[in-house]
Amino acid sequence: MHHDPSSPIGIFDSGVGGLTVARAVMELLPNEPIVYFGDTARVPYGVKSPDTVARYAAQITRFLLAKNVKMLIVACNTMAAVALPAITGLSPVPVLEVIDAGAASALAITRTKRIGIIATPSTIASRAYEQALARLGGPDVHTVSKACPLFVPLVEEGWLDHPATRLVAAEYLGPLRAHNLDTLILGCTHYPLLAPLLAQVVGPGIRLQDSASAVARRAAAILDARGLRHCGGKPVHAFHVTDLPHRFLDIGQRFLGQAMADVQLETL
Amino acid sequence: MHHDPSSPIGIFDSGVGGLTVARAVMELLPNEPIVYFGDTARVPYGVKSPDTVARYAAQITRFLLAKNVKMLIVACNTMAAVALPAITGLSPVPVLEVIDAGAASALAITRTKRIGIIATPSTIASRAYEQALARLGGPDVHTVSKACPLFVPLVEEGWLDHPATRLVAAEYLGPLRAHNLDTLILGCTHYPLLAPLLAQVVGPGIRLQDSASAVARRAAAILDARGLRHCGGKPVHAFHVTDLPHRFLDIGQRFLGQAMADVQLETL
Repeated sequence: MHHDPSSPIGIFDSGVGGLTVARAVMELLPNEPIVYFGDTARVPYGVKSPDTVARYAAQITRFLLAKNVKMLIVACNTMAAVALPAITGLSPVPVLEVIDAGAASALAITRTKRIGIIATPSTIASRAYEQALARLGGPDVHTVSKACPLFVPLVEEGWLDHPATRLVAAEYLGPLRAHNLDTLILGCTHYPLLAPLLAQVVGPGIRLQDSASAVARRAAAILDARGLRHCGGKPVHAFHVTDLPHRFLDIGQRFLGQAMADVQLETL
Repeated sequence: MHHDPSSPIGIFDSGVGGLTVARAVMELLPNEPIVYFGDTARVPYGVKSPDTVARYAAQITRFLLAKNVKMLIVACNTMAAVALPAITGLSPVPVLEVIDAGAASALAITRTKRIGIIATPSTIASRAYEQALARLGGPDVHTVSKACPLFVPLVEEGWLDHPATRLVAAEYLGPLRAHNLDTLILGCTHYPLLAPLLAQVVGPGIRLQDSASAVARRAAAILDARGLRHCGGKPVHAFHVTDLPHRFLDIGQRFLGQAMADVQLETL
């Protein structure tokens, strides 16, 4: 298939979370059309096996390639952690993902190389962030990881500044204090919405790093290098989900920070 | 297909929650073999559309009928609320479900006919409990409903007596206080594990009613009426899931209150 600058960027996630990545891409690359896919019938992926996640990821990849995307962004930490070979194996276009971009960005801002990672249980179990940090940062990077399964439902409930969320965060993040971290990676696309509360819980000595803006910067660099950056007018974005388009629209606008055009229902 | 007393009872749910129903059936009918199905690859159902839930429910029904079950118990409030026609339409054997049984049981214990219902968002949105209570209890039954989406992840995290869970419960249940209820239906199979904490939050004036024991009593009556009660020795139970059998085993034993034999992985 032929790609030119007017081809869209494909961004996908298990649900609404990847809209924080779409938002970062829209802010940095305001002329690029985006095709977003959220697998809302099968969300959450964070509690599924690697085999199942890889199978679902391959189905979504095929769907987006059929839309003639010029680039794929895996905006789901779980898929990036366990399904990247299944995606890159199918794709003739560049595949970017949040883990590598987030790890590189964390290494660029840390001074002490003592980095924490919070994410869903399956992302943590995959050790994908630790491995990326060790690969990119060398043997003297110290990492500590913590699975935070309640953060996604709390964000989807909209309790972004609720006492219960604060208690949960204190319980999850308390044990990290002993590690003298200076950087904390928010390894799940839902977590940027909790950033103000998390910053209060961890205190001023720790910088929070989310992967959305990091992957957007990487996308811009690759499009420029390949002459695929679109400079036309205001783009039209498309949103596809596998269930409950209305719920996606309602919750999603909080993640995207702006209104969405209509959302298409798809069966994979 | 021919059913005799030695045929198993099929019990199914979107995940582990239905094991609280399996537990009640095992306690009341200790000689009955049970085939349990948990759709752990696609859990949770509570945030999916009725069409999607009905499609999944039909797949599970076919799977269990192929195991020659003599009775089906829908141990998932979401499926009972939105997918019952899809299940009964396929089944030549009796289909029992938690909503009707739970509503009848609540009506048997209420003195004031002021009944609250807590459940997942989709069960509440379906109004299935209200409708069952109105149908069985007449026009002077007063009901009030509240969706509690965070209870399932809190139970699965094992935070059954955690300050955060107490805060969440206080937030969800506080608005019910003005309704002078005397009975509160726990309209989700996960909630019995929170019963001790919920009892403290609502205070001594409100009795909690879960549907598991109610549906088990109904199963016993139907088996007796049809001469299908099994009186043999210790039965062998079977457990089938669509993903992560180890996680099901780990979490499930807390729900079942006893060890499980091995868990089979299935693809629907």
